[in-house]
Amino acid sequence: MDPYVIEMNGSGDHPSVLDVHVNVGGRSSTPGKVKGRKARWSVKPSDMANNTFNPIRAIVDSMKVKPNPDKTMISLSIGKGDPTVFGNLPTDPEVTQAMKDALDSGKYNGYAPSIGYLSSREEVASYYHCPEAPLEAKDVILTSGCSQAIELCLTVLANPGQNILVPRPGFSLYRTLAESMGIEVKLYNLLPEKSWEIDLKQLESLIDEKTACLIVNNPSNPCGSVFSRSHLQKILAVAARQCVPILADEIYGDMVFSGSKFEPLATLSSNVPILSCGGLAKRWLVPGWRLGWILIHDRRDIFGNEIRDGLVKLSQRILGPCTIVQGALKSILRRTPQEFYHDTLSFLKSNADLCYGALAAIPGLRPVRPSGAMYLMVEIEMEHFPEFENDVEFTERLVAEQSVHCLPATCFEYPNFFRVVITVPEVMMLEACSRIQEFCEQHYHCAEGSPEECDK
Amino acid sequence: MDPYVIEMNGSGDHPSVLDVHVNVGGRSSTPGKVKGRKARWSVKPSDMANNTFNPIRAIVDSMKVKPNPDKTMISLSIGKGDPTVFGNLPTDPEVTQAMKDALDSGKYNGYAPSIGYLSSREEVASYYHCPEAPLEAKDVILTSGCSQAIELCLTVLANPGQNILVPRPGFSLYRTLAESMGIEVKLYNLLPEKSWEIDLKQLESLIDEKTACLIVNNPSNPCGSVFSRSHLQKILAVAARQCVPILADEIYGDMVFSGSKFEPLATLSSNVPILSCGGLAKRWLVPGWRLGWILIHDRRDIFGNEIRDGLVKLSQRILGPCTIVQGALKSILRRTPQEFYHDTLSFLKSNADLCYGALAAIPGLRPVRPSGAMYLMVEIEMEHFPEFENDVEFTERLVAEQSVHCLPATCFEYPNFFRVVITVPEVMMLEACSRIQEFCEQHYHCAEGSPEECDK
Repeated sequence: MDPYVIEMNGSGDHPSVLDVHVNVGGRSSTPGKVKGRKARWSVKPSDMANNTFNPIRAIVDSMKVKPNPDKTMISLSIGKGDPTVFGNLPTDPEVTQAMKDALDSGKYNGYAPSIGYLSSREEVASYYHCPEAPLEAKDVILTSGCSQAIELCLTVLANPGQNILVPRPGFSLYRTLAESMGIEVKLYNLLPEKSWEIDLKQLESLIDEKTACLIVNNPSNPCGSVFSRSHLQKILAVAARQCVPILADEIYGDMVFSGSKFEPLATLSSNVPILSCGGLAKRWLVPGWRLGWILIHDRRDIFGNEIRDGLVKLSQRILGPCTIVQGALKSILRRTPQEFYHDTLSFLKSNADLCYGALAAIPGLRPVRPSGAMYLMVEIEMEHFPEFENDVEFTERLVAEQSVHCLPATCFEYPNFFRVVITVPEVMMLEACSRIQEFCEQHYHCAEGSPEECDK
Repeated sequence: MDPYVIEMNGSGDHPSVLDVHVNVGGRSSTPGKVKGRKARWSVKPSDMANNTFNPIRAIVDSMKVKPNPDKTMISLSIGKGDPTVFGNLPTDPEVTQAMKDALDSGKYNGYAPSIGYLSSREEVASYYHCPEAPLEAKDVILTSGCSQAIELCLTVLANPGQNILVPRPGFSLYRTLAESMGIEVKLYNLLPEKSWEIDLKQLESLIDEKTACLIVNNPSNPCGSVFSRSHLQKILAVAARQCVPILADEIYGDMVFSGSKFEPLATLSSNVPILSCGGLAKRWLVPGWRLGWILIHDRRDIFGNEIRDGLVKLSQRILGPCTIVQGALKSILRRTPQEFYHDTLSFLKSNADLCYGALAAIPGLRPVRPSGAMYLMVEIEMEHFPEFENDVEFTERLVAEQSVHCLPATCFEYPNFFRVVITVPEVMMLEACSRIQEFCEQHYHCAEGSPEECDK
């Protein structure tokens, strides 16, 4: 009998489901060359899947506490820093209109090139072009969000077994991506007492011949810090000395408060090759739209065509971002009114000041004043909260008692801090701060053996 | 001097560009621990970037011929099978309206879960649910296009060093993705004389203990073939016997011509674990929108939670598809009128018949009649075209002389065929066929030593 002729079990009007027997233990007499074929079902996830680890998910999901039922929940956590969840920060109507126009044109339903439409890349290039860091369309790759931009950059620059330099505290995606690809993560320190500047000596000491790139995140998630020009120049000097290319995560670029200035890293160096990652997510308040980009700065031709071609080839694996958003990009970049950006930043600064002021007055907490982005980091003087093992327990209990959720900074490799998201409406911010105050007052203890007097 | 203090070169109003000298040959006396650090710039693309190879790009880009300036270009190629390029196949107005409604709601600007909104996954589940292959939201993962769906499936199922079974002729992305990840590709044959059914014996002979999955593409790109239920059952029998899970690329699902029937693979088996990949691209004619999905069929719990969790974890690397499209999904799936699907298929069938009829009448060509999708494969009887080395040269010359571009099937690992895209407007289809006829007539030779008489 031809083994490839199937006998049907059941007939009639109903579709019959073929129920082929599974061989167990290889004792079957089925046909085909039996050269080491599988004797039983065993489908396991790949190493890459097993090695893809999201610390925020792991930590947040393992927090089993329930909020206090007598208090409405206020979340100052939000893993990915989503500015849209409270509804108080809508995008500009011009941005939405640009999308509708792109839809109505009927021109943006088909495939774009995998790196994005030429016309859309031209718009991004001219938007970010400046004399110190010139850009053309060929220097721009559009991606499915800034996450894919970072993923493509890491993938093109590093092989398994190499290492990358990642800030601590820092955005967890860098580690998640790197470790899933077998790339080692070396953490360099940011110094809270220096407004989260990099410990440059420690950074440089980590570099070895296997270092594939240095990730610089400015403005910073989770710190809300903005590096000064002179600090950026020192970072560039390390990279130049050590011949290490830079992945600049500048998704919060231009999101700095009055008094600070955002300097794109590439504008300060003509010799260090830089891949700058950005996108619409934060500044235009549409993170779900998944429109990111890579800006290639390589004026000394160190990346050369090889890295550029590598990025193009990698972009072909899943193709680029949604074409409607690409089609809307020109209008979004050209027509969004300055007041929109200004209003967003005014709101964030006012909330940051309010939060900083309130938390700075709480014994046992030491917030670090932010200069941009959407976050604020708060140190917990753990010696004053002996009931709690660490920041995870502190934030867990804060949920249980006060229904306020902040992300423990262990999520960012930085224990004994927590991160506050400052995009919440002002009244919620105030209420959250007052509940944090109540919580701290209830749990504050004078440090053992402390010479200072405890007023409580 | 503190090596981390930077001396500025230049001052004044202009921003100064720091021009740090690059060390060459390690002869510098710069500070920092010099433990095997890099002495000069050397930034090379990763192995993964180097191993990402798109045969269509490579073959098409290397075709250096120019079209005949006296004839307008007709492209029957289009690497990815984009149905929108001619403007004759717009999506339905309901689909566009659904997007506008999602925009206007303001509810879909933030981050969705990385596997997609629960409500959107519920819609996909209920759209594809049937008693033989039940689906719930937990069985659906939304992706950035069907490409990412396939990428996630391959990534979760296969480790480097394992192998996957891929159809020949077949869509080039399978090989591109697999080889970039160090996964071996084993090609199983489709048989043109059997309407592109799988050579099951040869398929089964390829399976060994390192086989991670079998890719079944039905309806097929590039063949336009649609497998019968009995053939699908035979495929499932091989998978069940050999304990190999299936990745069913069903992006052309339901795109079959009257007289044929599309049977989702999962409806025919209750024991073989199947990841079915699909999306909006083809049936709703919006490939650029990048909304794909994975349907997890695992009624015997062979994938289990491990593979499901692996897919979820991998989805967190770049997050999911554009949230506006996700928000529109409910209306797209519920409101698109039946006439839209019907009209698309009528048009494709009519064009397929027209093209098949015209090409079948040309000496030297042997088209294979399609039953679905958007393609038709044509065999070139190379012995009658001795001027041309192969299908690549044949199609190159067809461009040079007749300004008609078809993809040589070498792009699909199937030399001596070419693929015709049948989404072009009817007049262009007719004109293209008549030019192909003229071309063939001009180059046709009786086969050497052929007993048959040559009428030419």
